[in-house]
Amino acid sequence: MNKFEKAQEVLRELGGDGWLIICVEDSDINSRFMIGVESHARHYIYVAADGNHKIVAVEMEAPMIERSLKKKGVKAEVFSYKSMKELDGLLSPIVTKTRVALNFGENVLSPEGTGFADFINAGDYLSMKKLAPQTEFISAAPIIGALRAVKTPDELKDLRNVCKATIEILETIPDWVKVGMTENDIKAKLEYEYMKLGKPSFGSIVATGAHSADPHHNTSLKKIEQGVLLIDSGLQIDEMSSDITRTFWVGSNPPEDFIKAYTALYEAKNVATDYFTDGTPKNLPALKCREHLTAKGYDHEKLFFHGLGHSLGFVAHDIGGGVSWKVPEKYKFKENMVFTNEPGLYWRDKWGIRLEDDIIVGKGKCEQVTKVSKIPILI
Amino acid sequence: MNKFEKAQEVLRELGGDGWLIICVEDSDINSRFMIGVESHARHYIYVAADGNHKIVAVEMEAPMIERSLKKKGVKAEVFSYKSMKELDGLLSPIVTKTRVALNFGENVLSPEGTGFADFINAGDYLSMKKLAPQTEFISAAPIIGALRAVKTPDELKDLRNVCKATIEILETIPDWVKVGMTENDIKAKLEYEYMKLGKPSFGSIVATGAHSADPHHNTSLKKIEQGVLLIDSGLQIDEMSSDITRTFWVGSNPPEDFIKAYTALYEAKNVATDYFTDGTPKNLPALKCREHLTAKGYDHEKLFFHGLGHSLGFVAHDIGGGVSWKVPEKYKFKENMVFTNEPGLYWRDKWGIRLEDDIIVGKGKCEQVTKVSKIPILI
Repeated sequence: MNKFEKAQEVLRELGGDGWLIICVEDSDINSRFMIGVESHARHYIYVAADGNHKIVAVEMEAPMIERSLKKKGVKAEVFSYKSMKELDGLLSPIVTKTRVALNFGENVLSPEGTGFADFINAGDYLSMKKLAPQTEFISAAPIIGALRAVKTPDELKDLRNVCKATIEILETIPDWVKVGMTENDIKAKLEYEYMKLGKPSFGSIVATGAHSADPHHNTSLKKIEQGVLLIDSGLQIDEMSSDITRTFWVGSNPPEDFIKAYTALYEAKNVATDYFTDGTPKNLPALKCREHLTAKGYDHEKLFFHGLGHSLGFVAHDIGGGVSWKVPEKYKFKENMVFTNEPGLYWRDKWGIRLEDDIIVGKGKCEQVTKVSKIPILI
Repeated sequence: MNKFEKAQEVLRELGGDGWLIICVEDSDINSRFMIGVESHARHYIYVAADGNHKIVAVEMEAPMIERSLKKKGVKAEVFSYKSMKELDGLLSPIVTKTRVALNFGENVLSPEGTGFADFINAGDYLSMKKLAPQTEFISAAPIIGALRAVKTPDELKDLRNVCKATIEILETIPDWVKVGMTENDIKAKLEYEYMKLGKPSFGSIVATGAHSADPHHNTSLKKIEQGVLLIDSGLQIDEMSSDITRTFWVGSNPPEDFIKAYTALYEAKNVATDYFTDGTPKNLPALKCREHLTAKGYDHEKLFFHGLGHSLGFVAHDIGGGVSWKVPEKYKFKENMVFTNEPGLYWRDKWGIRLEDDIIVGKGKCEQVTKVSKIPILI
């Protein structure tokens, strides 16, 4: 069953006539997920419950979309437009239906809302309501969830491959990173290696010294110092991504407090790992991880101020939600979901340590696709 | 006058209390434009007409935003949230005003609409309407236009620098590109060079042979053949981007029809160049370019099926609109706008040629920041 057929199945459950993806300048990653090619100009993908799929794309991009769909074995009619003036006429028959799903989120300010499905821009949403005032537009959250949260065997195979390739590259870091290089030099070299195989799944975070205390530090031109070096990066090959963080020590003899924190974090991560299992509440790994940190004397509320992990897949932050002690109990893991497991401890103006591995949720036991070193790697 | 002050000025003209940018997972590039740092998690930037600017960001990203604003000399209060449950309470006093600008577009299906300002996701737009039902939300298009369409002297200086750096890298291509490398190998090497200085301003298009007939070809693992090699790429350093296309011939003795088309395109581009001047209708360069192609025997409607260029700046596709023969006459160039000038000729299943340079609109004459070779470069 291909993605279009799977979406049709969910559409029928929802009583929907179709699912419309509107993508402008890469605003909706679900476009590439469905058609297998990056189309940058304004385009529309209509997955029809009855199988009469339609794509509306700008003239210069339509042929490559047609070829990509053919390669994927998806039958869809591709309409090409030369000028935006044609859009009303092309789109009106597509959306003048009873019920059409669009990629908008509901209650996005609530952690229990469907913000994860909120891709359509407001102007586009309003334009569809205006074009088809009789149509009921519903959130496509259930479709996006069904297609992307639980991974297929092929996707899991690709995940293992991309993780293996990433680890092989990360393992070379101590060979070529030197004091005096900039954070940006390391990012460039790392992403160059990624690009030979695929592309970076996000902009690598390379953080030296106190920069590592910002979990989302923007890689800079600062030179690598003796001390902490945190590298958070990922690779994407075809349709699967990795997302891995390693915290190194540049120099010999890392101080006692660094080793102690690294070790506590390593153990806390292992404690969490046991709870990435089918049917387990998503807050449990984080709660257990934080319990361990507390037992080791760390004020986790102050020092570990982000979630434990997030869904991973087609993109680094994939559909499937976060793993955090704040996730309501009722949200549970499902077999073959993929998550990062990435606890961190951060001391402002001093350093941060984060250890991040990628995990497949299993029936009684998860699969640790990557495994960080038990002791800090020295550079 | 910094960007916040400039935005305040436009806000006063619009009678607006403030401008709210809502950015989730990099959905709105105006966020980095304003605060100078990439914040990935859900965050809010409120530029207040009265100068009491406010930022709401997740706990783990708030400190780096604070530091970036300080560096830029912008005074803003940064509120950090730990859980989405706090957002209603934090945002309500910010948007409960008379009139607030949001980044949504109006009439986005019309070429004369403000789709260029359509960044906010639908769910977020609806959440603001729900949170502050008495507030009038207006499109921020005039603010975004005022801040980004016409470039400042500093931005133009940065543009010249980034173009110079890009050209220096592109000029090395014939030295290292070989038959047998893949398109992806070339992209990787090119972007590695870009990343040493900044980062790619978009994913490079490397197209060998018939792939060059797709203007937005997705760089693949295909090996470079003898014949056409089209490379469309760009570099971003700090806050300015380049976007340049070169079409090479791999091998000796390019065929007559290739040289003839390359030359006609080169001339047509030069013809267009003269019309990138203050006060000139934006359709004129494209009309003149197409006239020349027709005179040289090319069916431009069939072979040149995209616009002549687009605004360039903070991002490769910047605010400031397109340059096309279809743009209504009333839209005119303004001094210090920056555009690409990139005519192309494409023969499906055979090859495509595109020559793209970057241009600053001048009073009576434009500044050609980059200049493609008059004759095809051989590799």
